Amino acid sequence: MSQSIELIQNRLLYRGRKFDFAVDRLRLPNGIEGDWEYIKHPGGALAVPITPDGKLVLVNQYRFTLGARILEFPAGTIEAKETPDQTISRELEEETGYRSSQWRFLGKFALAPGYSDEYIYFFLAEGLEKLEQPPAQDEDEDIDVVLMTKQELEQEILKSEKVDAKTITAFYLAKPFLG
Amino acid sequence: MSQSIELIQNRLLYRGRKFDFAVDRLRLPNGIEGDWEYIKHPGGALAVPITPDGKLVLVNQYRFTLGARILEFPAGTIEAKETPDQTISRELEEETGYRSSQWRFLGKFALAPGYSDEYIYFFLAEGLEKLEQPPAQDEDEDIDVVLMTKQELEQEILKSEKVDAKTITAFYLAKPFLG
Repeated sequence: MSQSIELIQNRLLYRGRKFDFAVDRLRLPNGIEGDWEYIKHPGGALAVPITPDGKLVLVNQYRFTLGARILEFPAGTIEAKETPDQTISRELEEETGYRSSQWRFLGKFALAPGYSDEYIYFFLAEGLEKLEQPPAQDEDEDIDVVLMTKQELEQEILKSEKVDAKTITAFYLAKPFLG
Repeated sequence: MSQSIELIQNRLLYRGRKFDFAVDRLRLPNGIEGDWEYIKHPGGALAVPITPDGKLVLVNQYRFTLGARILEFPAGTIEAKETPDQTISRELEEETGYRSSQWRFLGKFALAPGYSDEYIYFFLAEGLEKLEQPPAQDEDEDIDVVLMTKQELEQEILKSEKVDAKTITAFYLAKPFLG
């Protein structure tokens, strides 16, 4: 079936600040036609930052979608003309005030393929130094920086329900590289 | 800041088959006003199904958003008047042809809080039996059932980039219960 799905029409419903809403009208091989809606996303980039003394750097961030704070690795949407590594070095500085001199690309994963085409590109960030003059956070972000050991983060992941899927995914994918 | 975000307007942009697109106009404590778009989602439910001989049951599913097949745990959107446990026992049968007689609720996690209010409720499903007459799959689904050991799934997770974030998250959160 995947060979022969026919795209009849692609409609842009809404152009958002970081991603768009779209609807594809598809004809399936069984003849059924319908609309499938999804987010058209430019992709995301995420850092698993670790300090020289083995602390992971996370952000405790207010999310209006949930009306709650979520514990996350620093991450952001890839902007126009950016590559994923440019996005994440910018986001790491903006969100945490740390700069990394040692980046390692670890891979990518699909975040929510039921309704988004986003892949997240994730990186190990070592050689961290705290900036004396960190760049301003995005005006719409409300972020506290949190340092945790691997063991402390794993406790939060297993117990708290306050860590999101991208962060849990990236933690376990990066774990073999965390020493 | 999280205490005093003011919701000025909530607009429904599009009513989809399983979720809606919405835009909130918010006023931040720093006085800035803007639109933030997101998916309004009824929530999802996911099973980590394990057979009596220790095989995990997954689905290899075509996703039109990615134009690719992704390896996933059985999961679905909570429909009107369903509870998460009703959703997942229905989805497990539809997607895999297995029925579980032994469910255990393990928790919930936020899937994509940057653009969706979805939480996924996830369950360990044991006591599996293959149905002789499985229900029909959804007409828009293109699914192959795959059985794997824990070790085989972990290899796929670490190497393939074909496993999505909800599946990786649920696998590691369920691992302490998999024996």
